[in-house]
Amino acid sequence: MRARVPLPVERLIEAFSRLPGIGPKTASRLTYYLLRAPEGESLELAHALEEMRPVTRLCPRCFNITLVDMDVCEICGDEARDIGVVCVVEEPLDALAIERTGQFGGRYHVLHGTISPVEGIGPEDLRIEELVTRVGREKIVELILATNPTLEGEATAMFLKRRLEGSPVRVTRLARGLPTGGDLEYADVSTLSQALEGRLDL
Amino acid sequence: MRARVPLPVERLIEAFSRLPGIGPKTASRLTYYLLRAPEGESLELAHALEEMRPVTRLCPRCFNITLVDMDVCEICGDEARDIGVVCVVEEPLDALAIERTGQFGGRYHVLHGTISPVEGIGPEDLRIEELVTRVGREKIVELILATNPTLEGEATAMFLKRRLEGSPVRVTRLARGLPTGGDLEYADVSTLSQALEGRLDL
Repeated sequence: MRARVPLPVERLIEAFSRLPGIGPKTASRLTYYLLRAPEGESLELAHALEEMRPVTRLCPRCFNITLVDMDVCEICGDEARDIGVVCVVEEPLDALAIERTGQFGGRYHVLHGTISPVEGIGPEDLRIEELVTRVGREKIVELILATNPTLEGEATAMFLKRRLEGSPVRVTRLARGLPTGGDLEYADVSTLSQALEGRLDL
Repeated sequence: MRARVPLPVERLIEAFSRLPGIGPKTASRLTYYLLRAPEGESLELAHALEEMRPVTRLCPRCFNITLVDMDVCEICGDEARDIGVVCVVEEPLDALAIERTGQFGGRYHVLHGTISPVEGIGPEDLRIEELVTRVGREKIVELILATNPTLEGEATAMFLKRRLEGSPVRVTRLARGLPTGGDLEYADVSTLSQALEGRLDL
């Protein structure tokens, strides 16, 4: 006796549900919102979806997202940026986060993931050899490893450090410690240990 | 010096951000996910978006979502369902929630909102007169008011009750009380008061 959702509605709910972090409830909510909103809203989203992929690609140098009609991405092509410092990140969004600080004037290298034996992701699945090639070819003096402070991020950073042994490049990583606005009382043991270890003179 | 996101990427982030409950961070996450996923995933979502609106419309009887090529929705057209009981809900998703219980064999009436003076939504913006017309025309013996247990939902239910005064139809509403799996200790005063008031003999 239970009635079902009309098929085209069901199809949109399913398509939304396939996105990461969007459960069936959120997918339904979005779909029913679009059923009531002006049709233009659905179409704008549809067109943005259709148009993005054909015009974007990875920068052949740093593997960040760029446009197909550009040789290298905006950052790699910017003469004003320091070619000697390369910040190594897991994902394009991490590079954007660092850009937002306004504190970094070098270039990036996007690995597109982390080494994760559990998920079957090895170094050969990441842009690691491309980084090693860059270190040999470009005038890089410092690599800032900005992988996430997670098990996989740390393992990837350690792998990179070993892989670059013997190379004259300086390998650094982002500082660990208490986050701004954080509460000492609620800081986890690892964060607090690293804040202690990395303490600075005032 | 800060680099920007390529325009087609920015456009998709913006389109996602316009959806309710999707902030700029989630919108970026979804967009960058689609940049890496097989292109088919973006296209499937795009097509589902484009196809839904032209083939759906509101059922002219109950105002739930139905297909343009159907006279009335699946529920209104189902001869096996009780035409004497109509459940009045705010949104199509509420009707779906009641369908999922498998306990309701009547029909629905979707108001498409609640009376909300703050948002400037009056009774004339909802499908209230259409409900009154149905009560006069169809053999309805009971209206179950299943608006949300919120200020607006309650106000809408009270308005409906007054609007139907003098009509022989029985007007009921969903029971109030402790939710299954809830914790008495954490129940709010209003819920607990209504659970006490509505107590049943064991």
